[in-house]
Amino acid sequence: MDRKTQIVRRATELFNTHGYAHTSLEDIAKQVNLRREGIYYYFKDKSDILTEIIAAQSKALLTGLIGVVARSDLSFEERLRLAIRNHLERFNPHYLEMAVATREASSVTAKPKFRQLRTIWKAYDKALLSLIVGGQKAGAFRKDVEPKIAAFGIIGMWQWLSRWYHPEGPVAMDQVVDIFYTIATTGILNPGSGDRAVKSGRASARRKMPGMARRPRSSKPTHT
Amino acid sequence: MDRKTQIVRRATELFNTHGYAHTSLEDIAKQVNLRREGIYYYFKDKSDILTEIIAAQSKALLTGLIGVVARSDLSFEERLRLAIRNHLERFNPHYLEMAVATREASSVTAKPKFRQLRTIWKAYDKALLSLIVGGQKAGAFRKDVEPKIAAFGIIGMWQWLSRWYHPEGPVAMDQVVDIFYTIATTGILNPGSGDRAVKSGRASARRKMPGMARRPRSSKPTHT
Repeated sequence: MDRKTQIVRRATELFNTHGYAHTSLEDIAKQVNLRREGIYYYFKDKSDILTEIIAAQSKALLTGLIGVVARSDLSFEERLRLAIRNHLERFNPHYLEMAVATREASSVTAKPKFRQLRTIWKAYDKALLSLIVGGQKAGAFRKDVEPKIAAFGIIGMWQWLSRWYHPEGPVAMDQVVDIFYTIATTGILNPGSGDRAVKSGRASARRKMPGMARRPRSSKPTHT
Repeated sequence: MDRKTQIVRRATELFNTHGYAHTSLEDIAKQVNLRREGIYYYFKDKSDILTEIIAAQSKALLTGLIGVVARSDLSFEERLRLAIRNHLERFNPHYLEMAVATREASSVTAKPKFRQLRTIWKAYDKALLSLIVGGQKAGAFRKDVEPKIAAFGIIGMWQWLSRWYHPEGPVAMDQVVDIFYTIATTGILNPGSGDRAVKSGRASARRKMPGMARRPRSSKPTHT
């Protein structure tokens, strides 16, 4: 690990444990056996390090999503599943980076830096939106759902992992992908319930998949 | 507005604009025409004010949700819709408080305070979980969805409003409630699409509702 990567990694750990506000440049320097001045060779200030952490994760998410959306050889549903996987798999092994990126995004207040991040985020929204709109046009997705709001809702499900998911926890990532895919595509309403029956061959097939009913033994919800 | 409420309100505005890390007790004091020492009459420190902001919103959400879950006169679907409404309507008029509560939750690092908040959040998770499990037992919700992960996904959709929703924006809260309800109950898959047909009388009725296809003219996504 080169020195710059090392600084980013230690800073991520400190931001995650103590919060960005409670971490000083001295704290970070100490972790990599540098003086505060030594950090300046790599970063202008603390918020530069935070921006680096967030930008790296956001760019990786965006690159992955653009690749998924472009897969015109796949159906829109299959692309949606891959989009979910692309986002969620960032949390493992990059759990700490993603947690810090999500929690501390509002700590990047310097305008040029914030604008840099915002550009990536907007491109990400746009890519997911184009997937949903494309699916609506092709008849794969319902047209009565405003695609932008649906996109934000779906991104919210994904990003919230930073508050409850832990790579060492009992919940398998594959299970989360499956469940989020089910919610996004067919919802939680029971297809076989009374006069509100929603019939779907795929849904009942999925219901029989092993391991779907397993419950996590614990988790650490820390949402508001 | 009494002095304490005024302090909380001004602090919320400052935390929202500049971030918790970049707001000092002096900044807050100045906004309410007090010296820094004057704040100590009401709060021990800055994190006490933040805890007050978050606890107030979290408690209101919890009280509302418990009331909704207890409505055994309603179907589980109707209760789910009310649960969505209960959460989302916190963002209007309490948008700033909710934004700060969501973004800055990790800035509450003092253990007793964090534990106090965590207790409320756990109770909230538990209430939503009991609604989902109850609906699964009653046959209203699918049993192949692990209820805890579903609950976290659904809460994520709701909480993410703090990153893109603005009360003065073009998106009507009723529309967000409708769309999130659609996603959570039936998903975005087109009921009428080819061999993957999912038939539902309600779904097609909803598709004809006026105003559902309206797109927001703008929004301010600031997610990671």
